[in-house]
Amino acid sequence: MRYRKIPDETIRRLPIYLRGLLFSAKPADKIISSQQLADFLSINPAQIRKDFSYFGSFGTPGVGYNVEKLIKQISKILKLNVRHKAALVGAGNLGRAILAYPGFKIYGFDITAIYDNDPKKIGKKIENITIEDVSNLTLLKKQKFNLGIIAVTREAAQKIADTLVNAGIRGILNFSPCHIDVPKKVKVITIDIAMDLARLPYYIPLS
Amino acid sequence: MRYRKIPDETIRRLPIYLRGLLFSAKPADKIISSQQLADFLSINPAQIRKDFSYFGSFGTPGVGYNVEKLIKQISKILKLNVRHKAALVGAGNLGRAILAYPGFKIYGFDITAIYDNDPKKIGKKIENITIEDVSNLTLLKKQKFNLGIIAVTREAAQKIADTLVNAGIRGILNFSPCHIDVPKKVKVITIDIAMDLARLPYYIPLS
Repeated sequence: MRYRKIPDETIRRLPIYLRGLLFSAKPADKIISSQQLADFLSINPAQIRKDFSYFGSFGTPGVGYNVEKLIKQISKILKLNVRHKAALVGAGNLGRAILAYPGFKIYGFDITAIYDNDPKKIGKKIENITIEDVSNLTLLKKQKFNLGIIAVTREAAQKIADTLVNAGIRGILNFSPCHIDVPKKVKVITIDIAMDLARLPYYIPLS
Repeated sequence: MRYRKIPDETIRRLPIYLRGLLFSAKPADKIISSQQLADFLSINPAQIRKDFSYFGSFGTPGVGYNVEKLIKQISKILKLNVRHKAALVGAGNLGRAILAYPGFKIYGFDITAIYDNDPKKIGKKIENITIEDVSNLTLLKKQKFNLGIIAVTREAAQKIADTLVNAGIRGILNFSPCHIDVPKKVKVITIDIAMDLARLPYYIPLS
């Protein structure tokens, strides 16, 4: 089943609801109301009901939602119930940080290939994965990869994205600090931690 | 000089402007117009002019902004022109990923202390920093730390935040996947990469 016409903003909130359901509900709670979920997440309950309405009727009016069913349904919509083979491009400090980040496994990403263009790195291993020559990126789709993770320099990011797209990759996580252009059929999510770091010192009195 | 009443949304955009100035301008360009900067960043030029107006008159109408002066001014406002001693709490996988992330050094964060509550970790070294017992966190302010970085479990995060606040820390980067409450004088920025990861598979056709 494909759910069409769901706004990106709703998709953006679904992982938040999912985590809320996983952590707000006690094991004994089989039913949760939109108000309870809203209180836990500090989100407007009408927003939650509206978001859920895109996927058909999940709940019973005046009673609430079946927690277990809702968790399964959201996971399925987000395709978090299947594993996704992901390739990491860039084996520098940023790439190493990404490999060390535990969130990927939790959300179904299996990073099983690493690419770099540095002859000194190619052939070496990080976390038991052998670093391959970036020129092999073109073979990704044949190897059933769905996701690419970009952790290269700003200057190289667009070219790597183009290569990933040509290799048939449809989803890209971009950790390089720049915008990248891709065709409409490809989804890019840019994660830019530095912009959050850089605004914290503003709020701190200098000692 | 303290700049008061600047909206958080403006502060949120300043690091983006700063990076735009550093990368959009060729070394020979001494002047940049708000339109040029806007084009490079895909932001409305009126927004840029309004944000800059909070800090007095940076530019010359009809000409533009002096790039070098603007970079210095924004860095000073954001207090990125000084180093900030930061303490990391949590030496698990997330903590290790944070230590490996190159962005901290670039933006003036010196992570020089690591804390954990696991006796097996205390005394060991990561990236040449000896992991200390979390019970020593109370001594942070005496040691001139300004920033705390939380990378512990969801269950432990609030207690660690309370301890940091009591130790005099005024700025917290929270990488734990939860909201934490702090007094008004303390700034918390929560960085939650997992919520971005979790929405990518939705956009990818299952193979």
